[in-house]
Amino acid sequence: MNILKLEGLLKGIKSGKTTLDEAMAQLKSLPFEDLGFTRIDHHRSLRRGFPEVIWGEGKTSAQIVSIMKQLRRKGQNILITRLEEKKTKAIQRVFPKSHYYPRSKVLTYLTHPVRTPGKGTILVITAGTTDIPVAEEAAVTAQFMGNRVETLYDVGVAGIHRLLSERERLEAARVLVVVAGMEGALPSVVGGLVDRPVIAVPTSVGYGASFGGITALLAMLNSCASGIAVVNIDNGFGAGYMASLINRM
Amino acid sequence: MNILKLEGLLKGIKSGKTTLDEAMAQLKSLPFEDLGFTRIDHHRSLRRGFPEVIWGEGKTSAQIVSIMKQLRRKGQNILITRLEEKKTKAIQRVFPKSHYYPRSKVLTYLTHPVRTPGKGTILVITAGTTDIPVAEEAAVTAQFMGNRVETLYDVGVAGIHRLLSERERLEAARVLVVVAGMEGALPSVVGGLVDRPVIAVPTSVGYGASFGGITALLAMLNSCASGIAVVNIDNGFGAGYMASLINRM
Amino acid sequence: MNILKLEGLLKGIKSGKTTLDEAMAQLKSLPFEDLGFTRIDHHRSLRRGFPEVIWGEGKTSAQIVSIMKQLRRKGQNILITRLEEKKTKAIQRVFPKSHYYPRSKVLTYLTHPVRTPGKGTILVITAGTTDIPVAEEAAVTAQFMGNRVETLYDVGVAGIHRLLSERERLEAARVLVVVAGMEGALPSVVGGLVDRPVIAVPTSVGYGASFGGITALLAMLNSCASGIAVVNIDNGFGAGYMASLINRM
Amino acid sequence: MNILKLEGLLKGIKSGKTTLDEAMAQLKSLPFEDLGFTRIDHHRSLRRGFPEVIWGEGKTSAQIVSIMKQLRRKGQNILITRLEEKKTKAIQRVFPKSHYYPRSKVLTYLTHPVRTPGKGTILVITAGTTDIPVAEEAAVTAQFMGNRVETLYDVGVAGIHRLLSERERLEAARVLVVVAGMEGALPSVVGGLVDRPVIAVPTSVGYGASFGGITALLAMLNSCASGIAVVNIDNGFGAGYMASLINRM
Amino acid sequence: MNILKLEGLLKGIKSGKTTLDEAMAQLKSLPFEDLGFTRIDHHRSLRRGFPEVIWGEGKTSAQIVSIMKQLRRKGQNILITRLEEKKTKAIQRVFPKSHYYPRSKVLTYLTHPVRTPGKGTILVITAGTTDIPVAEEAAVTAQFMGNRVETLYDVGVAGIHRLLSERERLEAARVLVVVAGMEGALPSVVGGLVDRPVIAVPTSVGYGASFGGITALLAMLNSCASGIAVVNIDNGFGAGYMASLINRM
Amino acid sequence: MNILKLEGLLKGIKSGKTTLDEAMAQLKSLPFEDLGFTRIDHHRSLRRGFPEVIWGEGKTSAQIVSIMKQLRRKGQNILITRLEEKKTKAIQRVFPKSHYYPRSKVLTYLTHPVRTPGKGTILVITAGTTDIPVAEEAAVTAQFMGNRVETLYDVGVAGIHRLLSERERLEAARVLVVVAGMEGALPSVVGGLVDRPVIAVPTSVGYGASFGGITALLAMLNSCASGIAVVNIDNGFGAGYMASLINRM
Amino acid sequence: MNILKLEGLLKGIKSGKTTLDEAMAQLKSLPFEDLGFTRIDHHRSLRRGFPEVIWGEGKTSAQIVSIMKQLRRKGQNILITRLEEKKTKAIQRVFPKSHYYPRSKVLTYLTHPVRTPGKGTILVITAGTTDIPVAEEAAVTAQFMGNRVETLYDVGVAGIHRLLSERERLEAARVLVVVAGMEGALPSVVGGLVDRPVIAVPTSVGYGASFGGITALLAMLNSCASGIAVVNIDNGFGAGYMASLINRM
Amino acid sequence: MNILKLEGLLKGIKSGKTTLDEAMAQLKSLPFEDLGFTRIDHHRSLRRGFPEVIWGEGKTSAQIVSIMKQLRRKGQNILITRLEEKKTKAIQRVFPKSHYYPRSKVLTYLTHPVRTPGKGTILVITAGTTDIPVAEEAAVTAQFMGNRVETLYDVGVAGIHRLLSERERLEAARVLVVVAGMEGALPSVVGGLVDRPVIAVPTSVGYGASFGGITALLAMLNSCASGIAVVNIDNGFGAGYMASLINRM
Repeated sequence: MNILKLEGLLKGIKSGKTTLDEAMAQLKSLPFEDLGFTRIDHHRSLRRGFPEVIWGEGKTSAQIVSIMKQLRRKGQNILITRLEEKKTKAIQRVFPKSHYYPRSKVLTYLTHPVRTPGKGTILVITAGTTDIPVAEEAAVTAQFMGNRVETLYDVGVAGIHRLLSERERLEAARVLVVVAGMEGALPSVVGGLVDRPVIAVPTSVGYGASFGGITALLAMLNSCASGIAVVNIDNGFGAGYMASLINRM
Repeated sequence: MNILKLEGLLKGIKSGKTTLDEAMAQLKSLPFEDLGFTRIDHHRSLRRGFPEVIWGEGKTSAQIVSIMKQLRRKGQNILITRLEEKKTKAIQRVFPKSHYYPRSKVLTYLTHPVRTPGKGTILVITAGTTDIPVAEEAAVTAQFMGNRVETLYDVGVAGIHRLLSERERLEAARVLVVVAGMEGALPSVVGGLVDRPVIAVPTSVGYGASFGGITALLAMLNSCASGIAVVNIDNGFGAGYMASLINRM
Repeated sequence: MNILKLEGLLKGIKSGKTTLDEAMAQLKSLPFEDLGFTRIDHHRSLRRGFPEVIWGEGKTSAQIVSIMKQLRRKGQNILITRLEEKKTKAIQRVFPKSHYYPRSKVLTYLTHPVRTPGKGTILVITAGTTDIPVAEEAAVTAQFMGNRVETLYDVGVAGIHRLLSERERLEAARVLVVVAGMEGALPSVVGGLVDRPVIAVPTSVGYGASFGGITALLAMLNSCASGIAVVNIDNGFGAGYMASLINRM
Repeated sequence: MNILKLEGLLKGIKSGKTTLDEAMAQLKSLPFEDLGFTRIDHHRSLRRGFPEVIWGEGKTSAQIVSIMKQLRRKGQNILITRLEEKKTKAIQRVFPKSHYYPRSKVLTYLTHPVRTPGKGTILVITAGTTDIPVAEEAAVTAQFMGNRVETLYDVGVAGIHRLLSERERLEAARVLVVVAGMEGALPSVVGGLVDRPVIAVPTSVGYGASFGGITALLAMLNSCASGIAVVNIDNGFGAGYMASLINRM
Repeated sequence: MNILKLEGLLKGIKSGKTTLDEAMAQLKSLPFEDLGFTRIDHHRSLRRGFPEVIWGEGKTSAQIVSIMKQLRRKGQNILITRLEEKKTKAIQRVFPKSHYYPRSKVLTYLTHPVRTPGKGTILVITAGTTDIPVAEEAAVTAQFMGNRVETLYDVGVAGIHRLLSERERLEAARVLVVVAGMEGALPSVVGGLVDRPVIAVPTSVGYGASFGGITALLAMLNSCASGIAVVNIDNGFGAGYMASLINRM
Repeated sequence: MNILKLEGLLKGIKSGKTTLDEAMAQLKSLPFEDLGFTRIDHHRSLRRGFPEVIWGEGKTSAQIVSIMKQLRRKGQNILITRLEEKKTKAIQRVFPKSHYYPRSKVLTYLTHPVRTPGKGTILVITAGTTDIPVAEEAAVTAQFMGNRVETLYDVGVAGIHRLLSERERLEAARVLVVVAGMEGALPSVVGGLVDRPVIAVPTSVGYGASFGGITALLAMLNSCASGIAVVNIDNGFGAGYMASLINRM
Repeated sequence: MNILKLEGLLKGIKSGKTTLDEAMAQLKSLPFEDLGFTRIDHHRSLRRGFPEVIWGEGKTSAQIVSIMKQLRRKGQNILITRLEEKKTKAIQRVFPKSHYYPRSKVLTYLTHPVRTPGKGTILVITAGTTDIPVAEEAAVTAQFMGNRVETLYDVGVAGIHRLLSERERLEAARVLVVVAGMEGALPSVVGGLVDRPVIAVPTSVGYGASFGGITALLAMLNSCASGIAVVNIDNGFGAGYMASLINRM
Repeated sequence: MNILKLEGLLKGIKSGKTTLDEAMAQLKSLPFEDLGFTRIDHHRSLRRGFPEVIWGEGKTSAQIVSIMKQLRRKGQNILITRLEEKKTKAIQRVFPKSHYYPRSKVLTYLTHPVRTPGKGTILVITAGTTDIPVAEEAAVTAQFMGNRVETLYDVGVAGIHRLLSERERLEAARVLVVVAGMEGALPSVVGGLVDRPVIAVPTSVGYGASFGGITALLAMLNSCASGIAVVNIDNGFGAGYMASLINRM
């Protein structure tokens, strides 16, 4: 249930179209219903003003379909992350209009058009081409949450002129999501070039002493540039969500 | 040199008060001057629209005074972090109007009044009383950068009603900085209660397996709540700076 | 051999039904017999008052069947943990009345009805749905050891009202097992709401800097709430066993 | 405020000695008052049935005295942990009847006699003599919370007969707290000898690859014995508190 | 080439059966020959008095056969460790008398009977049944190097009487190899019961915070018992070799 | 009490000089007496055939003197490790004939002459001069336990000819203790040159990524040479003790 | 585009064969073109004087072919690392003259003959045979960049005479690449024998506490020999590249 | 003894000024003499062509003076690193012409003028001002070994234009030493701008998750730029030495 629906309900009470009892009944049905295995929190989309998000890992197709049906009934838009491709078939049989992004393993489903609360552009940047799946998770999330998103890929610090030649786009963005593996240096350089919030996303790209993204994570936390905050390794969704929260302001 | 000064300079050119040669001379003097040991980047305050920040650790009083003089000459406001109390004496002899915050080890110096670009309130929250020094570093930074700052201390998750009873203040804030040591759980709970960006700051408060803040850091990175990004352990300054960037939007 | 059997034996001696020699022979057969690959400790069920537990990992079906036969002969109830599904076929051919729980990979076998020494209810709580397999291992263990067990799933701290709306059930429990991955914050919140012992179980649920459960483990060890103790990552059995020991008191 | 006081209040209402307004006023004053730097939660002692505990680390004597006065006014018993000896002087000037344990750095203050809800004996065991300060923190906590406590020190596993010769005392205890540094093996051996809950406390005793208690912590978490749960490194208080919760059952 | 062969060679010179030139030729052929991919060090068996050992991991069957042929030509006994079963087929076609131990993945090949330089018994002990493959690697190595080996399996510390009931065998051994995973406590207890050198072998048996054997390794390094030294995780071969060196003394 | 004393006692019984009751009384007094803070295990010197060892860290001078008096009464030789110099004054007032080694922080006290069960020479080797204190702890321990000890210092692998030029001494030793910090490579090279057991001791010598000895410890555990076992970081005592056990064989 | 091509272009301008407009057009086409997924930096080969290198991991055959075509058009020599064998088929269909090295997973493609700027010999050394794939990556890289390369395999420190017998080759080399897993000691010994730069490459060869190459990496960073610098675990390419840079000097 | 001296000796033999016996006597005195606590390797300066280096940490002034006297007698130039200021007084009494650098804790002593084998300029760069002590250690080492050294301080990546404005100096250098703490990103950017070898030095500058330089170390090892090799944390000496080896080529 989204804010528009709630507004309609309250206006119905005011105008007399809806009795108080009916309104109470509908409102009472809002809190999380127990599906046996997961609690869907319908108040949450209200509180946060955003669609419902499902973490696909460790859930069966059947469980996911069951949750999606509940959410569709309430008129929610749905975003599923970390969804293995093999699970999508069963889901898309029930939700044929859902859209799956295989690189980033994200599935989206719309019950109503996406409104655009984002005020400016969110720019998603990667150091290398191998970081793109994580970047795409961020980009899809931010788009789905109503933002204009642009991307700038493969501009790592070892060829700094590649980044510098795009300085206009950097400065035009309102929020920046910077995705990098290996030594994770890109957010520091970007953070020094712009005066906008930078969300840094370490990726597990690399080998040997990259330790599955720990090196990039630590480097980003220790950035000598100000105006940078960090999310978990490979957490493109978290970065896209945070950027969306900021871009609504 | 801040934006006001630059505007004045450009207007002077327009009105004929300043010759192009004079303007060029002044502008040329802007880029980082080499003080021998540190490069001050005067363009930066222009680019970022913020005062100059000096990391006090590992610098002598004499070095700091030298840098501050350069900055004062350019009309910069100055923020020094991680400054041991014993160094302040020599500094305050030269800069008697500077202000030192002993708990958070921050020193501020104003050459011109702080303008208030921040649009709403930044709320700084701590889990315990021992986290307050780090929180104060965040709060002082944000205030110095022109924000209205409120604080809510000692509302850790083991007594969840302490936090819940302040829900109105949580919801009234535009950006939240959440500071916690030990298990670092507070940002997750706060993040679930508000629909605003949360900057999480792990502190080195704790003992044993808290590992000087690593446990809190990891917990915050793995938060199950969305809309949270993390800065380095004990990095109150970084959180205050990031919150200020966001609150200007 | 359980306490009832031993009591019978001793009473037999007293009443003259059993000769001392017969009793000695039976008692002598009690200590661990050498099956070649594993030592079954029949005194243990006597000492601990609980069924025999077998760690299924790294044992073949044939080895497990051989151990189970020995135990059945002694009249033991049997609990096998970490048993891969593919091994159960061969076991259930010999022990058709055994019961396998595929989610938690536990197999139970009863030679005599479970008595109920547990005095109150053990409540098993999870933060997310992905934590349920570990929670089920705890629940099955506790039930098998004679306790009334209730479950409360998917009440993680990012939606704190989901937990708070179940406060009556929290307060009604005599012992609580709290299962969580990611940031592992749930035991801290639960520990602040009840005045009963909380056994915290970190799970390997998460990704990136969750490090296979280390983050949740560290968070639980550093809980700011009192009355919490922790078991190994994914050790649902250990938590169920500990809770059972406490609930007998 | 403890249960007795609350009972008195309610009886006063019933008998007419206390007006409803007076009762309401008193009850309203109960919730956490803001002392500026810390929130004291008077409901908590009611909810948990235990005295108020203050973590002394990082608090000044003045802050502690201020908190203690608030608590004394409410009739609370007080336990302060991790209190450096040099801070006690100022405290004992105001609270001359408080008692300080220098080895374990604990201070206790009684406003009313300790009642004894503990049903049996809590046995506190150490592997070596260097573990005694942590053990004493556990013992003092448990005694202060109304338990009969016994101790058994220096019975580490390298001289297993020292432990075995005390088997009667092990079996007589209702709850056991086992404190060990270095390889942390003692809880495994004790856990195999008793059928009572064992709270394991790793200590930072050791050098080199003991890593300040990490080795002992990991060993205890991986114990092959059942019926063991673990608290943080050097957390004697936590173990004493947990044992007290269990011993009340 | 072993010491007997060398003695024969030198005696041949003395008696005139071998000319100096022939002897020189044979001796010259001893040093490592370059097989292109590996250097076999024939002097080494002479220096160390032991058979040649090949680490099977990362070598193809063809490479191993090539090395074995070189060694057979010199009259060496051969021990191959970490040899996957699938590689043995090709090897046993060329060396049909070689013997493969599938549990411990060791292959042995004799060119001459094993002499028995070991003076007493080496006792190999495990904590659990899952540790047996590593123990077997130690036992096979020690047997192959001419020692009388006995085994004592599944006597972990959680059932300490299982170990104590075998005390005579412990005391009869000249060197002890103690193999344990999980909390790795067994060497400490054994070390306290005997006055003979104990070689401790941590195994990767366990889960969660056992970290693939790190916990057991750290526990063994921090043993409070004296007379213990440690080898790498799962390094049964290293323990068997070290025990053999000691048992020859 | 040592073996000689026990033999005397038993002979006294045989010859009639000692009544059985007297013998029993004396024997009964043998087991560990409770000094309140530590349990001295007099049987242990009998079982292990070695003097009693006290870990000095964390014990006061008064505690140590009290333990030493008990041991002297039983006729034990005493070795105290990790004893800070400032504690020795009070000890040497009571035990003026005790000997303190300031570099290695070891104190020894003889109640009877050291017998020499060691059969050959133990050679203690260091990589650098900074490793000498740990090496001396090993050397003093081994000497005190009746071994002939030689030392070979500062022969690290970066100047391999320094080591090779001492090859005769390496080959003459019966057991070798090899002490090294930094990259910990020396045991591998020594292990390849001799056919005797090598006890490797990592030291905390180094900086940066030496991590207080972890690097050296890991290197030694992963040695490609056979016949090496490892003790804890800086554990010279443990190495000297282990070498003594081996050299008695 | 390489230096020869650029020289040709500039000479063409000088001689009048090329108009300025044509030259500008060609030069403008040089900077990185956006292939959609990766930015090829043609200036780079100019700046660095070396062929273009592609990291094969995480790229599809189609992506690689597309990049290679772009590079071939510019006349670049191409080196692809970490290329799984299964991807080579599709590549070699388009580039039949490319050469694939299956052990080191490197593919090379020549558009013009390799010039030989290297002045001396680069010697690539390994400790064991299992390190050879990484060594080959270094050797192929260095050869492809125009150096004379020699190899010396399986000369680990446990048989130090194998290395010492090759001392002449060590001293003849101008730059040395030393590749080792396990304890990573070889660079220290080599560094002590030569007065030339040593590039140390840790490999993930080993098991247990080798931690996938971390032990070797740490050992090399802590080498007591001077003149050693280290690259990432298994980074043969990086070592070959660095050695080539040095050998050109 | 340096090469000049050796040449003189050999020429003396040739010309008849020195008898063979005298020469032999002098040459024999060269190998490491045993000073009791340290072995000075006089051949080494010959082999490596560089002065003798002493690691000052853990050595007393008296020990250092003793070593220096030995070296002076042989005509060596001497470099002492990690020498605490308080030790210099005693040294400079005996060696008044020695020079101490307090920031980098290096002492140098010349017995003969420094020759200049370095062919170009070594450029030492730092990210911040706090990295300067480590950089100075590198610079002093390189100068002492006969190189022209330039420095470029405080050009960290958060203000990338500071670095770019010095591009000419970067390109003019023959070898570059890049020193950085925190996120350690500077070598990646520098490595992308030059075609010369870059020696990267991580420093322990930073706090929280910088872990005493580990973050910078890992970032440098994972650099996406080629032509970079890394030395230990804070190892300015090692970098200066490596750069000198390369610059002689």
